[in-house]
Amino acid sequence: MRDGEQTPGVSLMPEEKVWIARNLDSLGVDVIEAGSAVTSAGEREGIKAVVKERLNAEICSFARVLKQDIDCALECDVDSVHLVVSVSDLHIKAKLKKDRDSVRQMAVDAVEYAKKHGLIVELSGEDASRADLDYLTSVYRAGIDAGADRLCFCDTVGVMNPERTYDLFSRLTSELKVPISIHCHNDFGLATANTVAALRGGAAQCHVTVNGVGERAGNTAIEEVAVVLKSLYQVNTNLVLQNLYPTSKLVSRLMGIPVGTNKALVGENAFMHESGIHTHGLMANTATYEPITPETIGRKRQIVLGKHAGRTSVVLALREIGLEATDSQVDEITARIKDLGDKGKHVTDADLMSIADSVLDMQSEARIKLIDCTVLSGNHATPTASLKVTIDGQEVVESGVGLGPVDAALNALRKAVMGVADIKLEEYRVEAITGGTDALVEVWVKMSRGDRFISARGAGPDIIMASVIAFIEGMNRLVQEKNGISAKH
Amino acid sequence: MRDGEQTPGVSLMPEEKVWIARNLDSLGVDVIEAGSAVTSAGEREGIKAVVKERLNAEICSFARVLKQDIDCALECDVDSVHLVVSVSDLHIKAKLKKDRDSVRQMAVDAVEYAKKHGLIVELSGEDASRADLDYLTSVYRAGIDAGADRLCFCDTVGVMNPERTYDLFSRLTSELKVPISIHCHNDFGLATANTVAALRGGAAQCHVTVNGVGERAGNTAIEEVAVVLKSLYQVNTNLVLQNLYPTSKLVSRLMGIPVGTNKALVGENAFMHESGIHTHGLMANTATYEPITPETIGRKRQIVLGKHAGRTSVVLALREIGLEATDSQVDEITARIKDLGDKGKHVTDADLMSIADSVLDMQSEARIKLIDCTVLSGNHATPTASLKVTIDGQEVVESGVGLGPVDAALNALRKAVMGVADIKLEEYRVEAITGGTDALVEVWVKMSRGDRFISARGAGPDIIMASVIAFIEGMNRLVQEKNGISAKH
Repeated sequence: MRDGEQTPGVSLMPEEKVWIARNLDSLGVDVIEAGSAVTSAGEREGIKAVVKERLNAEICSFARVLKQDIDCALECDVDSVHLVVSVSDLHIKAKLKKDRDSVRQMAVDAVEYAKKHGLIVELSGEDASRADLDYLTSVYRAGIDAGADRLCFCDTVGVMNPERTYDLFSRLTSELKVPISIHCHNDFGLATANTVAALRGGAAQCHVTVNGVGERAGNTAIEEVAVVLKSLYQVNTNLVLQNLYPTSKLVSRLMGIPVGTNKALVGENAFMHESGIHTHGLMANTATYEPITPETIGRKRQIVLGKHAGRTSVVLALREIGLEATDSQVDEITARIKDLGDKGKHVTDADLMSIADSVLDMQSEARIKLIDCTVLSGNHATPTASLKVTIDGQEVVESGVGLGPVDAALNALRKAVMGVADIKLEEYRVEAITGGTDALVEVWVKMSRGDRFISARGAGPDIIMASVIAFIEGMNRLVQEKNGISAKH
Repeated sequence: MRDGEQTPGVSLMPEEKVWIARNLDSLGVDVIEAGSAVTSAGEREGIKAVVKERLNAEICSFARVLKQDIDCALECDVDSVHLVVSVSDLHIKAKLKKDRDSVRQMAVDAVEYAKKHGLIVELSGEDASRADLDYLTSVYRAGIDAGADRLCFCDTVGVMNPERTYDLFSRLTSELKVPISIHCHNDFGLATANTVAALRGGAAQCHVTVNGVGERAGNTAIEEVAVVLKSLYQVNTNLVLQNLYPTSKLVSRLMGIPVGTNKALVGENAFMHESGIHTHGLMANTATYEPITPETIGRKRQIVLGKHAGRTSVVLALREIGLEATDSQVDEITARIKDLGDKGKHVTDADLMSIADSVLDMQSEARIKLIDCTVLSGNHATPTASLKVTIDGQEVVESGVGLGPVDAALNALRKAVMGVADIKLEEYRVEAITGGTDALVEVWVKMSRGDRFISARGAGPDIIMASVIAFIEGMNRLVQEKNGISAKH
């Protein structure tokens, strides 16, 4: 948790630390580094709150080899400290402006002080990967003599490679008789490989973060190491793999750091399939294009349509929304989807249904049509929307207020259709807008009515109108059942 | 490019393929797989447009081992085909519903056909990592006999590990006398490590994508392999490393796939520093917390403030905006920044200036104050905003129209301050909104006046008002120079 929080712009409130800690504990991690106690009063409050939870995991605080840092950790009543001392000459000289002997002495003093106060001590060599190996070993030995329970090798700027890590750990673990941890950074994209190499070489523990968050390019991702060990090395850990994805979502939400679209295992796309060739294989056997089932880590497969869509994926998607079509109809639907895909569009459920309607000759007029919409907002005005729609040809005029103009428009719309259907907005997403204020905005909505779900899209330079268009499109699809279309989730 | 485009929802227009191809060529890549010619007419148009550029790189099309696919590639006049044939029993049986012998024969026929028509042929074993090695080798040998120029080993679902990859390539490259490529997927986060292991084992080429885009968790990232080879193995490639970051930005923009915040090398955070401890080291020597300088790959370092901010990073940040402070003033500013950081806030330039103002006792009233703002929008209304502001105490009323309500408000504001300062909006960003329509929206703006840049933030449930607040905050900071504050970029 401490490393993840060192991501610029991230700060967890005490109750957020507790939520994450509870989840890490259920996930089965052995040690939770709940923070760096010396940082601030707010930070100590958070660490104390985690300690009070009495979890199974050991609760640890980061500390420099300074009495002040250890005192702050003691104040929080943690089980252990992760004592970090610089061991490379670059760090010793440029950062600490000291020499090797005095730095080693600081480490020894800190370990003795922490042990005297009853803490479990893990002594970490910072920038160990760029340190002189003899000096590093001398610090480790001095630390063991002073009572350190565990050691840790930090690849602080991510410059190890798997071969070197394996060799080094084979040597260190045979020479030093306490457990040694590996702590990697992902600056060059090798954190997972290096962590696994260290474990192969005898490392007893590894430092990881959920989603690989952390400073710069982040730390080793817990989900990657857990799945690699299980799937590629047949090594079982204490981790409950099915909790990996839910934990990933929680951490992403609380830290406010979206997970990269194609992040291994937990990214939005990791179990999403588009290409026609592949869905063909997937239909026959999901293992063809998946290394593990998504359920292994607690998530679900997603099939989406686009320009690579083949007949098979179209049949699959039609089946999902409860439709059957003849071969020639499937050909026609596939061609139109490819066409939309060629324009760079992600094809939504509503797009597919609208194409299917037209090809299967089931098109009916939309039941809900927007005639007029006016929205007013301002610093002294309650955001207000008025709407005129027709529902099955009947004019309905409604108004609504909200926290913002989009909220007001949706409230008015919801009131207008109340008599026809009870529709719930499940998800509302605005594709991150970067550019000028005149950039095109894409709004995605997921709506439900009873147990039926539908996704729809609206686009335009005006976020309010784009949202209204998406809402009405989704609503129309949800109230269309009388035409024989019954969408399932 | 072909693999990147297989990301669900991604589709490049022909002119976008050309832009990316030109950039890949300047970056120094040897082969550009411009698409899969059989996919659609639009796809062929794009590949043809790339061929017409007459770049240095070899232009390649993906093709299954089918005459139809090769004919489409020929129609596009590419230099080479990447012929892909399934080699695992799982793929052969579940996907193709054929047997080993007939699949090998299909590969032979396709290679012969492509060679007869003058194409360079790279024969790829799909799902090779889960194939029987003897069968795989028999397909490779048959391919060589049929005239294949190169072979490729595809780890289609990303289940290789570095040791196995190294051993396998050592064996394959000693047995087979044509160049062999490695093609990895990142399902378990090992793509870069496996690709480098294959190159160490004798692979002649590697398949990579910019930003590691591709299906599911994506393919090997070109920037990671390039930098690992150069920095960790002292191997020079033809790649112009300084072009890596600009190319990453271009591909992300054209494909519409944002790069993960902490993606190695090209993520927003990869060279961003917050923590106080670290900026202390960085000030002395940037190598302390950076494996390479950001300039190596064509980007810049960024220092941000938050709860981990230490005195040193505050001094550094104050210096960046042209301010000096006494030790006790720095302490006070640091404490207030940590406080803001404890609340989970990213500290903007405007926040820092406002804190500095108050601590250095330089606070002056904001020159521009919002009195009244009303915005109207709708499907039959031109988005219109009216504003009343005071500028140096003088009331100014202005109105503006725009493509959307935010655009209208900004246009009105810009007109209102025209007499005081010519302010430009450089960047406008809405943090991706997920949740209900009543969720809090955060708007970030970057504005400039002459050569001065400033970032500011506005938040609230109403996107229009949040934007107006951010604009006015930024404008006030930019017109504040008479108070002695001179911000530099």
